[in-house]
Amino acid sequence: MEPCLTQQEISTAYTLVRQQTEHLVSRLSPEDCQIQSMPDASPTKWHLAHTTWFFETFVLLKYQPSYNTVNEHYAVLFNSYYNAIGAQYSRPKRGLLSRPALSEIKEYRTKVDESMTAFINQLDDGSPVLKLIQLGLNHEQQHQELILTDIKHALSQNPMFPPLLEHYEHQNKITSALSWHEFEGGLVTAGATQDGFSFDNERPQHKVFIPPFKLANRTVTNGEFLEFINDGGYKNSQHWLSDGWAFIQSEGILNPLYWKNKSGQWFRFTLSGLQALNINEPVCHISFFEANAYASWAGKRLPTEFEWEFATTQNKQHETAFNDRVLEPPIIEDRNLSSLFGGVWEWSNSSYLAYPGFKPFEGDAGEYNGKFMSGQFVLRGGSCFTPPGHIRSSYRNFFYPHQRWQMSGMRLAEDLT
Amino acid sequence: MEPCLTQQEISTAYTLVRQQTEHLVSRLSPEDCQIQSMPDASPTKWHLAHTTWFFETFVLLKYQPSYNTVNEHYAVLFNSYYNAIGAQYSRPKRGLLSRPALSEIKEYRTKVDESMTAFINQLDDGSPVLKLIQLGLNHEQQHQELILTDIKHALSQNPMFPPLLEHYEHQNKITSALSWHEFEGGLVTAGATQDGFSFDNERPQHKVFIPPFKLANRTVTNGEFLEFINDGGYKNSQHWLSDGWAFIQSEGILNPLYWKNKSGQWFRFTLSGLQALNINEPVCHISFFEANAYASWAGKRLPTEFEWEFATTQNKQHETAFNDRVLEPPIIEDRNLSSLFGGVWEWSNSSYLAYPGFKPFEGDAGEYNGKFMSGQFVLRGGSCFTPPGHIRSSYRNFFYPHQRWQMSGMRLAEDLT
Amino acid sequence: MEPCLTQQEISTAYTLVRQQTEHLVSRLSPEDCQIQSMPDASPTKWHLAHTTWFFETFVLLKYQPSYNTVNEHYAVLFNSYYNAIGAQYSRPKRGLLSRPALSEIKEYRTKVDESMTAFINQLDDGSPVLKLIQLGLNHEQQHQELILTDIKHALSQNPMFPPLLEHYEHQNKITSALSWHEFEGGLVTAGATQDGFSFDNERPQHKVFIPPFKLANRTVTNGEFLEFINDGGYKNSQHWLSDGWAFIQSEGILNPLYWKNKSGQWFRFTLSGLQALNINEPVCHISFFEANAYASWAGKRLPTEFEWEFATTQNKQHETAFNDRVLEPPIIEDRNLSSLFGGVWEWSNSSYLAYPGFKPFEGDAGEYNGKFMSGQFVLRGGSCFTPPGHIRSSYRNFFYPHQRWQMSGMRLAEDLT
Amino acid sequence: MEPCLTQQEISTAYTLVRQQTEHLVSRLSPEDCQIQSMPDASPTKWHLAHTTWFFETFVLLKYQPSYNTVNEHYAVLFNSYYNAIGAQYSRPKRGLLSRPALSEIKEYRTKVDESMTAFINQLDDGSPVLKLIQLGLNHEQQHQELILTDIKHALSQNPMFPPLLEHYEHQNKITSALSWHEFEGGLVTAGATQDGFSFDNERPQHKVFIPPFKLANRTVTNGEFLEFINDGGYKNSQHWLSDGWAFIQSEGILNPLYWKNKSGQWFRFTLSGLQALNINEPVCHISFFEANAYASWAGKRLPTEFEWEFATTQNKQHETAFNDRVLEPPIIEDRNLSSLFGGVWEWSNSSYLAYPGFKPFEGDAGEYNGKFMSGQFVLRGGSCFTPPGHIRSSYRNFFYPHQRWQMSGMRLAEDLT
Repeated sequence: MEPCLTQQEISTAYTLVRQQTEHLVSRLSPEDCQIQSMPDASPTKWHLAHTTWFFETFVLLKYQPSYNTVNEHYAVLFNSYYNAIGAQYSRPKRGLLSRPALSEIKEYRTKVDESMTAFINQLDDGSPVLKLIQLGLNHEQQHQELILTDIKHALSQNPMFPPLLEHYEHQNKITSALSWHEFEGGLVTAGATQDGFSFDNERPQHKVFIPPFKLANRTVTNGEFLEFINDGGYKNSQHWLSDGWAFIQSEGILNPLYWKNKSGQWFRFTLSGLQALNINEPVCHISFFEANAYASWAGKRLPTEFEWEFATTQNKQHETAFNDRVLEPPIIEDRNLSSLFGGVWEWSNSSYLAYPGFKPFEGDAGEYNGKFMSGQFVLRGGSCFTPPGHIRSSYRNFFYPHQRWQMSGMRLAEDLT
Repeated sequence: MEPCLTQQEISTAYTLVRQQTEHLVSRLSPEDCQIQSMPDASPTKWHLAHTTWFFETFVLLKYQPSYNTVNEHYAVLFNSYYNAIGAQYSRPKRGLLSRPALSEIKEYRTKVDESMTAFINQLDDGSPVLKLIQLGLNHEQQHQELILTDIKHALSQNPMFPPLLEHYEHQNKITSALSWHEFEGGLVTAGATQDGFSFDNERPQHKVFIPPFKLANRTVTNGEFLEFINDGGYKNSQHWLSDGWAFIQSEGILNPLYWKNKSGQWFRFTLSGLQALNINEPVCHISFFEANAYASWAGKRLPTEFEWEFATTQNKQHETAFNDRVLEPPIIEDRNLSSLFGGVWEWSNSSYLAYPGFKPFEGDAGEYNGKFMSGQFVLRGGSCFTPPGHIRSSYRNFFYPHQRWQMSGMRLAEDLT
Repeated sequence: MEPCLTQQEISTAYTLVRQQTEHLVSRLSPEDCQIQSMPDASPTKWHLAHTTWFFETFVLLKYQPSYNTVNEHYAVLFNSYYNAIGAQYSRPKRGLLSRPALSEIKEYRTKVDESMTAFINQLDDGSPVLKLIQLGLNHEQQHQELILTDIKHALSQNPMFPPLLEHYEHQNKITSALSWHEFEGGLVTAGATQDGFSFDNERPQHKVFIPPFKLANRTVTNGEFLEFINDGGYKNSQHWLSDGWAFIQSEGILNPLYWKNKSGQWFRFTLSGLQALNINEPVCHISFFEANAYASWAGKRLPTEFEWEFATTQNKQHETAFNDRVLEPPIIEDRNLSSLFGGVWEWSNSSYLAYPGFKPFEGDAGEYNGKFMSGQFVLRGGSCFTPPGHIRSSYRNFFYPHQRWQMSGMRLAEDLT
Repeated sequence: MEPCLTQQEISTAYTLVRQQTEHLVSRLSPEDCQIQSMPDASPTKWHLAHTTWFFETFVLLKYQPSYNTVNEHYAVLFNSYYNAIGAQYSRPKRGLLSRPALSEIKEYRTKVDESMTAFINQLDDGSPVLKLIQLGLNHEQQHQELILTDIKHALSQNPMFPPLLEHYEHQNKITSALSWHEFEGGLVTAGATQDGFSFDNERPQHKVFIPPFKLANRTVTNGEFLEFINDGGYKNSQHWLSDGWAFIQSEGILNPLYWKNKSGQWFRFTLSGLQALNINEPVCHISFFEANAYASWAGKRLPTEFEWEFATTQNKQHETAFNDRVLEPPIIEDRNLSSLFGGVWEWSNSSYLAYPGFKPFEGDAGEYNGKFMSGQFVLRGGSCFTPPGHIRSSYRNFFYPHQRWQMSGMRLAEDLT
């Protein structure tokens, strides 16, 4: 997304992003929007309301004196984790809120949109509130991706494997051969510039020393990952981190999330239902632990987040235009360093920590990113679920090393010595 | 319910019971019907489907050769616990089945009703299948009560305390004074006769020796229970069973389920939302542990199930006509032995065990009652949630001693010496 | 044990019982006495101290004004569950008390024994305190059995399967054939008489109606139970109570506790280490769930506790003299109704509930038995671990239906019609 | 420890380190050595055996052909986590192994020491096995510290708060005022040199860019931490990481581990029993979450591990000579940058990850450090429990952010801008 500092740009973006969200959920029934399949995920309905609550709470109730809240209960029901704002409804119970109904939440969105549109129209170019709204739009885009990953997880619980979309045929594409790109590294600059929007955790720009390294031209495929499985990868502790081994043992994990083996044939649950596994597609829905074990088995390692970011100086091309009728990772046929953006999120072996000189957002939104800086690993790149305009070199996604329901894959790296 | 052995009676009953179920859920949205607030409870939608699956599985698929199942997946999705029939979808996850939609389940009901009606019309009076259908109807009536208790629990999770019904005003009724009825007891007969429908666990009739005892004329009220609370009843281990004390400590329980204290005023969640506590109403939503502790505090005890059943020889009057606009227990003004039927379920201090000579239902329905005979206590009488025609002297309801979401209250008893 | 109302009898019994306890633990190291293998069990050291605390707390500190407690901390550390006495150290953490050392607890025993002996010598025949001391001795005898079951469980956790005793050879005894004894039943009297010691839960004597029944001449053997296993008994839900099936599934139970299969050969952990399974021995260490499933598979049922008690009018012979060098259940060769006492505890299908007119012990010891009256089943008869003089017709042992570390077996019964 | 590549040096070191271990446990009873208070900790007895198993397994059984194992069971019982070696006894159950007795484990140590001494005497200077033995000695030194932290935790479970040592009086020492040392940073070298022993995770040396920063002259004191508590630090989510807030909420944590408030007075459990809190002592037994929250409250931050290591170029002085009669952190009176070594371990805000070019130890010992590289944070410096010769600038200790039973404290840092 380009820098949005004029009232006009924000006004246009507001309309666009809010419509994208509603388009995304247009295929879902009230029942689909209700269900929450695990504490990590939220019901679609809750995402729709929470992103609206963000604008109501941080913009309208702070800066529009004449604004009256739509429903006082929503302050608690749709607050995610902002302790400074007040109490929150228990996260694992979000799926129990049958009221408000989906239709009422759509009315809530409409009312807030009307107030927001009128409010934005009064603002002057360069108003600091425009930055807050820009943050709210980026926040909503993050939830667009979560709406997709969460409903995918929810529908996967249903033994009927209901499809949301028609199945997309890859038309016999074949992935490119694995090759390596060499980088000298050195003392380089990482982090977001002041141009354009970035989250607080991408800043400030700072120096990092990177030793020479090699990076694979593309992400690991289902076919390659299958070799790891067939070589006993999930049954041999040798390649696993201690916590990873304990995790797959206690959960009985023997393959990536959503994979099913039926009489020797591999299938995979997708938003188009259960489909035969395509060995040319990037492997997806693996945890950091699985990514790390695969890399160890392959005699390589995962890249650091700074190696990955440094490599994007060579190729900033997005692999995919986001296409909500083709919600599976694309097959990479290009032999150059490619697929850095928009295929699958790529696990780095960097912990999610503050950059030197990190300053959280000011005000109540300051709880946005900083409070999650323990125990998580950084993912880079963006996925085919990531909305248009929401991918950039400096973007830091982060999840716990056991989490698998995001569109998470991997790319190999190696020391260059 | 009177004995239903003619084809005509079963045909009429079938239509009536099925319509009652649909009437009960007419106030609920698709979202309401979706949610499951705990593993003990099921979504309304699941109850609607499961009761239908019962007729499809045990009647149509067994005895109607031309019948084709509506959807093969339903055999797994809507089987509750009948291992002889096959696999079951995980009980705690029933709330995750957004598909089939409520509308599809209503279609399922319609299709099965059409087939059932046609099938019943072909049967001869006295056909053994009529007994199976009668069992299915009694089964559905049990689920009618569960639909109400489960949705009450589900809505109670919502901090908005949404009402389903208009609030019913008791119009200043005052409960009768507590008095005692004496019974000589002796060697008496307990259990269901061969007349009319009864479950396998109510049979056979058998002899029981009952020593002389006294029974309270009515159930314990909210006001009386409040005295127990105000006397520190929940904070003094003295009156509690060991398991009960551990239970209330670990759960932090300080009052009956659904009670809320706001600035010193007591309220109670009902199907009409949060309402001020009426001290004249019977206490309800207490566990066996709480009932037993109250009785100990009061210097009395709970009756055995046989004492209770024996007492009904004195009064078989139903306190309430079931009224689905007044879904709260009635205030008892009568000074005689009363409220035995249809106010609140009354905890006995009898474990739920087989009667001497117990024989389970024949066939696959044999898993109905017998397999639950460990760890539970018997409740007697029926509640204001119990559908018409489903209450009788010999009826044995049973729940675990910690469970509280049923319409469970208590009546005091004492040895007569 | 005969009635102990003279000062002399209690004095003699006191010395005897206390010595028996110390003899029992003479084979154990300080480390053995320290360990607690599960919350249900206690360290030997704790048993030694708790039984001593019982005399100190309920006798010396109440009735001997000049007595000073040995250590003030012991009031908390060695109180089991007597809330009326005060706080208790967390039960699952008893194994963490390395201090006091075993040697200090032996000193504690010596000091309390000296005070008790002097105190008893001052008492008059018929003093009410003599009854309290008698209760304390019966309490200690219960803990003698628990010392054996708990250390057996603790040592079973050690992959070296350390033996405490030399192995006892049964010398090719062969169990008698299964036969049936018929009983007319009727209105009979159950419960303890006023003669001799009995616990509160065995009283009062009361009338019970028993329909005609048959009882097996002996308990079920390992060989018979093996047939159940080999017939898929643990893999077929048909014969299991619902809670039992859930229990064996979640715990992965496929055989009685302490059985091990090595390359097709069955072994069993005993106090003499791992030994080949003797098919003539009574089956032992089974839960109520397993006993009930076996009975269902065999087309029989478990007896009620009243049937069992009624049957003892035919044979009050103890099968075994307690012999602490032969701590395995004896093989029954007698073809009459036998082995009712002292082989294995026999699961009844009666819940552990109060008899009509039940009154707990007076005073602080009133918490002894009554507070456990929910969720447990009664076992009758006594085992080869039960100390001499502690077995009688009216004795009611009780455990939860899943518990298996006691010497629990089973005998079949059937309706006589 | 100096580089130990001559046979003579290793021989001397072997004797010394093994004796130190035995000296450390000389105050403990067999019961003390038996207990395990949590899965994170191990019984003293197990530490004594495991460190011996290390030499037996990795040295004697590999390189001394005539050696026969002392007991075949020990291969399983005393393997910690080396999957390449074979199966392991369940970690949380280590406290259940009453056999072998403490005396048998001391015999095991003696036998292995005899074999090791004879074996070392045959080795040539420079033999690669000497490096393995050196690793084993450093491994045993790590367990020396764990023996102390684990027994401290175990004894803290005892409400008698038993002391192991006489109380040490600090003689009215007063901590120095807080002051700041400024560092320019830049592109610097981190990690262990090739001289002397270092663990694989300290290597290789590599370049790191450090922006300018300030570091406190000393660690935070109990008195300073008390101000945080008194200012509501544990009750205000604002300063806490999200995982940290969830942790202290679910565990009910309101102060550092081992602190007790009695009627307004603060005490602290030490190896000398419960002692009044000395506000001049360094705060200790805090989790990373608490350290991070304190730093946020103080408007500062924790240092990175590289900042800390860089600062040691200014002062390599050890604060304390290890003194096993004074096992509490020393009060720092020096106003210079001090207490970097040997007071308390200092939490850094660096995740425990591999250095660029990291290579695990070769052979079976390769599981030593690398498999723990997820979810943990680095601590630097060493504590008063760390044995002599086991502290250095490059040493990386690591624990999960919630763990508190180690001697973990903190030092403040700040950006210099």
